[in-house]
Amino acid sequence: MIYFDNSATTKPYKEVLETYSKVSEVYFGNPSSLHTLGKEAEMLLDQGRDQIAKLLKVNKKEIIFTSGGTEGNNLAIKGTALEHKNRGKHLITTSVEHASNYEAFAQLEKFGFEVTFLNVNESGEISISELKDALRDDTILVSMIHVNNELGSIQPIKEVGELLKDYPKVYFHVDHVQGMTKVPISFKDCYIDLCTISGHKFHGPKGTGVLYVRQGVKLFSLLTGGVQENNLRAGTENIPGNVAMAKALRLSMGKFVDNKNHLNELRNRLVNSLREIDGIVVNSPDNGAPHIVNFSLPGIKPEVVIQALGERKIYVSTKSACSSKLNEPSRILMVTGLGQERAESAIRASFAFENTKEEVDEFVNALKIIFLQLKEVMR
Amino acid sequence: MIYFDNSATTKPYKEVLETYSKVSEVYFGNPSSLHTLGKEAEMLLDQGRDQIAKLLKVNKKEIIFTSGGTEGNNLAIKGTALEHKNRGKHLITTSVEHASNYEAFAQLEKFGFEVTFLNVNESGEISISELKDALRDDTILVSMIHVNNELGSIQPIKEVGELLKDYPKVYFHVDHVQGMTKVPISFKDCYIDLCTISGHKFHGPKGTGVLYVRQGVKLFSLLTGGVQENNLRAGTENIPGNVAMAKALRLSMGKFVDNKNHLNELRNRLVNSLREIDGIVVNSPDNGAPHIVNFSLPGIKPEVVIQALGERKIYVSTKSACSSKLNEPSRILMVTGLGQERAESAIRASFAFENTKEEVDEFVNALKIIFLQLKEVMR
Ligand SMILES: Cc1ncc(COP(=O)(O)O)c(C=O)c1O
Ligand SMILES: Cc1ncc(COP(=O)(O)O)c(C=O)c1O
Repeated sequence: MIYFDNSATTKPYKEVLETYSKVSEVYFGNPSSLHTLGKEAEMLLDQGRDQIAKLLKVNKKEIIFTSGGTEGNNLAIKGTALEHKNRGKHLITTSVEHASNYEAFAQLEKFGFEVTFLNVNESGEISISELKDALRDDTILVSMIHVNNELGSIQPIKEVGELLKDYPKVYFHVDHVQGMTKVPISFKDCYIDLCTISGHKFHGPKGTGVLYVRQGVKLFSLLTGGVQENNLRAGTENIPGNVAMAKALRLSMGKFVDNKNHLNELRNRLVNSLREIDGIVVNSPDNGAPHIVNFSLPGIKPEVVIQALGERKIYVSTKSACSSKLNEPSRILMVTGLGQERAESAIRASFAFENTKEEVDEFVNALKIIFLQLKEVMR
Repeated sequence: MIYFDNSATTKPYKEVLETYSKVSEVYFGNPSSLHTLGKEAEMLLDQGRDQIAKLLKVNKKEIIFTSGGTEGNNLAIKGTALEHKNRGKHLITTSVEHASNYEAFAQLEKFGFEVTFLNVNESGEISISELKDALRDDTILVSMIHVNNELGSIQPIKEVGELLKDYPKVYFHVDHVQGMTKVPISFKDCYIDLCTISGHKFHGPKGTGVLYVRQGVKLFSLLTGGVQENNLRAGTENIPGNVAMAKALRLSMGKFVDNKNHLNELRNRLVNSLREIDGIVVNSPDNGAPHIVNFSLPGIKPEVVIQALGERKIYVSTKSACSSKLNEPSRILMVTGLGQERAESAIRASFAFENTKEEVDEFVNALKIIFLQLKEVMR
């Protein structure tokens, strides 16, 4: 099996599952309970929080556990808008957001908020001057994806942060779900107020995530109830999930440090091979993330290719997993200006640290054969 | 160890953790992906959904997976209010709700909704005639807890449902988190539109839950993004968690059927023993749930008792886990009219099917000794 769909989800590390099981079995208490079992659970949760905070170089009070990237984005965006609406109702985002950001803004529009969607260039990047022009007195939030989940395009988070530093009333939210453990950013140096990450994208358990909430930032809570997570996210804590996610983060970040160039090498190898195939065009920008390679086979239905690759146990995606079943050209590729033909025939290969050069070569060979066969059929 | 804090959370069954691990390892694909791994994951999720639907005797389209009881309650209440606000802004609930219901209503009040909190009698039950009087032309939702998490009081869900049947514009939501697998109700026979359950209360994984949404009921989605869960709850699905929860539900319901009277026997044994101890008063009503026994030691700080029991590895709670660290008398016991002294000194023992009569006896003996010692000290 060659699994090149790591941007959709990753296989949890063995050690992560072991941690999950152990914590579930031994430390199953409710951290809100006053007895030893509760206190042990609470301590463990605190350790997990501390570990994540240290890895992200933030304060542990700034770590809010969520059920995943979608919840994190929703809490950041709606939470900011609803909490600070008296200060202004203008929000800024980009036209290449993940559905969980995009739909959150769509909902807020119905609630009387005004949203500016920034354009992107052919590399999928916004322009700082367009952002600057969009900022208004009543702007309360700028929210953007860091690494685009379809193309791998990287937004200039540092520059945005430095610009927004001079707008203290504007909160800055980053969807770092695809960037985490692959394209590092410093939350502090980028002046980020809110940052979303999701456990299952770095070999952690599904249904786990973190929203980084800078100390001092107030949010309207979407899931209210108990006082858990600093009163921002109620509900009995998923301790095994959170502790296992902490482990996954540590392991993944370790692999990145140990082998900084590995993903880049896979990426370059694949891109160079694809560029040699007549009829295939690479969509990912050259300065994009190291783990995502998006390419098109204009005129060919990507589902057919996915199917044929699947028969050889090679797994890749069309567009983003969330929208892969919607029978439409990729919204992201369209707004990036790559044209309908490419947007309709795009395929995404996305790597994990475990993938190898040999797998890339096997993938390319299989693709060549399938592509030839399809061209025959279509002639 | 004697674990009598099963209303706070339960120990996951071994089989449940095995299922979780296996699914995580083998079926880790994203169900939205088009390839085999994605399809296998999707099939498995569908099976889990189907299994839960059959156990609850509802349609599988009516099962919405959530991250737990808190999310389920929030989605049901805010989702109904925000979706149907043009039809009316009056909501009805009770004064003995769990924090996740209570705070959801508190937030809605800030959004211009009007909320009626029904009173309860000394058994913690609402009155149908008070409910009937509270219903208005602009009422859009009646939401109530089935089994109270502190006292075990049971609301007359069937009667409420039969009353509301004649009010087709009023949605009926039930917080069944404590009732599930212990005090069965038929969602259909009770004319329930929305019903919350939580996996970790019946030996399933933490961070899992279901909101039953009757077909035809429209909700405003709180966590938007992808089209998962019928467009009501976006986010990559927690397949191992959901499938493991399905298993936990099946096992727990099986234990209930096999041993219908077991919890009742434990309960009666404990209540009878407690009633014999001078200075202890039982708060749970006689017609309450079989797994919750709430009692007070007027004049004594419950934390001290919890601590002393904990030294003997016996684990019980003060009030509800979510609010156990708030230094206040129990809100639930106060509104039930049990008085401040009892509300300040309450202890809750809550059973699982695995608990035994011997454990009850050991608990009572320990309690007697501790109680005597404390009385000595306080003399
Ligand atoms: C960029 C981006 N943001 C948010 C999400 C949502 O995360 P989750 O699946 O954990 O809800 C995803 C993945 O699905 C993503 O790729
Ligand atoms: C009656 C009741 N409703 C809702 C909840 C919340 O469920 P969860 O802890 O899964 O968020 C609980 C338990 O905490 C409860 O006892």
